[in-house]
Amino acid sequence: MDIIEEFPLIQYSRDGKEKKTGRVIIEMPLTIYVNDEELVTLLCTPERMDHLALGFLWSEGVLDGKDDVKKVVVDEEKGTVWVDAAKDKEFIKNLMFKRLITSGCGKGTTFYSVVDSMGSKKITSKAKVSPVQILDLMVNFQKTSELYQATHGVHSAALATPEEILLFREDIGRHNAIDKILGQCLMDGTSLSDKLIITSGRISSEVLLKTAKRGIPFLISRTSPTNLGVRLADKLGVTLIGFVRGGKMNVYTHGERIS
Amino acid sequence: MDIIEEFPLIQYSRDGKEKKTGRVIIEMPLTIYVNDEELVTLLCTPERMDHLALGFLWSEGVLDGKDDVKKVVVDEEKGTVWVDAAKDKEFIKNLMFKRLITSGCGKGTTFYSVVDSMGSKKITSKAKVSPVQILDLMVNFQKTSELYQATHGVHSAALATPEEILLFREDIGRHNAIDKILGQCLMDGTSLSDKLIITSGRISSEVLLKTAKRGIPFLISRTSPTNLGVRLADKLGVTLIGFVRGGKMNVYTHGERIS
Repeated sequence: MDIIEEFPLIQYSRDGKEKKTGRVIIEMPLTIYVNDEELVTLLCTPERMDHLALGFLWSEGVLDGKDDVKKVVVDEEKGTVWVDAAKDKEFIKNLMFKRLITSGCGKGTTFYSVVDSMGSKKITSKAKVSPVQILDLMVNFQKTSELYQATHGVHSAALATPEEILLFREDIGRHNAIDKILGQCLMDGTSLSDKLIITSGRISSEVLLKTAKRGIPFLISRTSPTNLGVRLADKLGVTLIGFVRGGKMNVYTHGERIS
Repeated sequence: MDIIEEFPLIQYSRDGKEKKTGRVIIEMPLTIYVNDEELVTLLCTPERMDHLALGFLWSEGVLDGKDDVKKVVVDEEKGTVWVDAAKDKEFIKNLMFKRLITSGCGKGTTFYSVVDSMGSKKITSKAKVSPVQILDLMVNFQKTSELYQATHGVHSAALATPEEILLFREDIGRHNAIDKILGQCLMDGTSLSDKLIITSGRISSEVLLKTAKRGIPFLISRTSPTNLGVRLADKLGVTLIGFVRGGKMNVYTHGERIS
């Protein structure tokens, strides 16, 4: 599917005006059905909808692993993904109901208990990365983000080793871009315990939790973390690196992985 | 409350490393109770929590106007807002349940019916603004956003007349920043039918609907709209202006309000 639509527009400056055509990113509702139940609708960039749906379901705890995925059917035109999952219908409904009622679009009363329960799964990866590798990865990440450069309306995320970028995804949603990567890793069986996630967006508590749940030891952004992002990274064993720009980078937590 | 927290960090460059202190924006869960029912928890910047809660409830249709607000109690330390609303408990629960179940964090199956129902309320404001006024407003908007410049982690939104910025708010969430403005307008009884909203973020369908519901004729961003944002603006009578930067601006819809 196209992810860019062109619109006529009038460009004004202090001196006059000019008719032009503008390239604009497509935003599309994607409705996810699990075992014939409508679960949720995300607004997304219509690319890799299967991976987005699977990554979202994995992040939310509806799927525990690849074995839970029996069948995936995507209808790109309608914006639907149907997932057959090896999960009890009641389990899924209860999970999503609990999530939605307690959290809305943020994290609710279960927020701190989620964090507490993850404390026991603190990331202990011995992976290392050098500052020069991170600076080089960010240069490549920025170059790859051509769509961003064309329309300035999307977030990007990448999965990388210290040496190279393995997957690069874009979406109007920061969370969606990361879920697209995680969904593909789920299906490919990619080991994540020695990988890096690079994001164009801010590192909030939600983004941090999403990657920490998957045991990913490095989370890197060219922009800033929030205080909750830093505190969770410290607690959960994530090496959090922000402001990777202009040949510099800030390591906020778990600098023992910087070689 | 403080909205900045300082963390020790190590700044690396290609040449070496240096111990520094980094200023990071605070992200805090805010739980909204209406008539003693827990409704939702938002992650936000802990400033103007009362206005955020009221703006959110107005945007979501829990409140129809100021008369529905009987009492507001904020506990900044705990991150709670208690609102006594002149609304039936069942009405509120059904509304939020429907919203959450059908929409999750996006817009659900009700999305297009929401748009359809708003079609009859197309904005017909005769307000006008000149290109130079918009360029000047954006210069002021950028200058005011000092917090953004200090920590690079927040979105900004402003309410303006063609001549000046009236309210300026910041939050880690694009939607929250606008809800903080709308919440204050609700309580102050501010007329919105001749005003402009300026946002630092992308103009997605959700942002467009939020301001169109309030009858605001101008929506302005220094970055891009999505295609759904442009289509909704066209349909709902909103003058949508994007990419206001470098002395230029793109008018996507309803250019009849540009003088």
